[in-house]
Amino acid sequence: MNMILKNSPIPFYLQVAQILRDKISNGDYTVGDKIPSEEEIVNTYGIARMTARNAVTQLVSEGLVYRVHGVGAFVSRKKLRRDLNKLTGFFEDMKELGFNPTSKIIERERRLANQREQNLLGLRKNQEVFYINRIRYLDEEPIGLQSMVVPVHLVPNLDEIDLINTSFYRYLDNIDSPLEKANQKMEAVMATHISNELEISEDIPFFYFERVSFTKDEEPIELLDSYFRGDLYSYDITLYR
Amino acid sequence: MNMILKNSPIPFYLQVAQILRDKISNGDYTVGDKIPSEEEIVNTYGIARMTARNAVTQLVSEGLVYRVHGVGAFVSRKKLRRDLNKLTGFFEDMKELGFNPTSKIIERERRLANQREQNLLGLRKNQEVFYINRIRYLDEEPIGLQSMVVPVHLVPNLDEIDLINTSFYRYLDNIDSPLEKANQKMEAVMATHISNELEISEDIPFFYFERVSFTKDEEPIELLDSYFRGDLYSYDITLYR
Repeated sequence: MNMILKNSPIPFYLQVAQILRDKISNGDYTVGDKIPSEEEIVNTYGIARMTARNAVTQLVSEGLVYRVHGVGAFVSRKKLRRDLNKLTGFFEDMKELGFNPTSKIIERERRLANQREQNLLGLRKNQEVFYINRIRYLDEEPIGLQSMVVPVHLVPNLDEIDLINTSFYRYLDNIDSPLEKANQKMEAVMATHISNELEISEDIPFFYFERVSFTKDEEPIELLDSYFRGDLYSYDITLYR
Repeated sequence: MNMILKNSPIPFYLQVAQILRDKISNGDYTVGDKIPSEEEIVNTYGIARMTARNAVTQLVSEGLVYRVHGVGAFVSRKKLRRDLNKLTGFFEDMKELGFNPTSKIIERERRLANQREQNLLGLRKNQEVFYINRIRYLDEEPIGLQSMVVPVHLVPNLDEIDLINTSFYRYLDNIDSPLEKANQKMEAVMATHISNELEISEDIPFFYFERVSFTKDEEPIELLDSYFRGDLYSYDITLYR
């Protein structure tokens, strides 16, 4: 279908959205391409300006295109689809998708656990933790920020692990204290200071995850605060009744 | 702790954030209260202006407080914490939390399935669906928008169900085609047209869920597109390795 059906029960704007969606999935427009302007849509399909605008807004809301003010609308990068049913780390995740994950450590210290860390990791106030804050990249592009807090007495050698090119979770497997499960809280947030840290637009929302991971002995071994770009990530989950 | 420890390894801004966090959890400041201004924080704790700002930014990023431009920062409403491990509907969810869920139907039609619906629900192009678009409220407050698409041949009486005061999922239990599972995609998005529909600020991010629900016979019976307010919702999930 490449034209509007005037007597269809489907509203015009959804018909136009469907035509454009097809052109994107066919590859007529690919990532970064400018899609037709509202003006051009009006002329091509003989519809009202507002209808053309609604069609584009529909695609924006689906994450298929994004608008640049005063310039037009462009095809979005495909989102990274991650499986939420499994406990995996960033490094493993990205390798599995065939990408080249890298990191930059922006903070790293060994210090006493703060109140929140004591609560979530079951620590006393005189116990120490490693705190490591990393920017995560995918082929040069900053895609998230993760700060990790690990009790020193559980992983005393954390300082010696290569946290840029290897997986911490795999390391735990190797030293025979593999993770068993994690409790994770998920939020959708705006976070100006994270946007600035990643040097991306402040208009991009983030997924925020607070994760507490446990070993087989039910010992909390990691507190992970993650911010991942909402414009690049999508999560899949299977729910059972 | 109610003052800054100058020789602590914890950065000043995190110490101040912790003091304010404690005052919020103690109830010294409750929902809607203005927390001390940056000026007041500077004077109380003898720290730099930027440090005071970072402390407040920390709490904003945790969702504990929100800023009103030129006025100050206020304690946020507690987020609704939902369990992501179970397949439930909005109505059941809110009842379980002890709230009074209501809805307003803003669109309702019986029409042919569009291309996306045909794909996701396994329909042919001559098959009909019910399309119902609802604003969801919690005690008068708009908290989300959900559009539901159900094949007519699977639930021919959908027109007669009270979709405002009852649960569709319970209805399916009652007519002996209970849901078995659902595949759900989750995104974090900005969505101006949804914000406008709900009459809330365009700066609030949304969780977007695309859910396809299946009956015990593995028949897709529902396509649900949901937008829920990121400032009000938080999701919990347990992950296994």
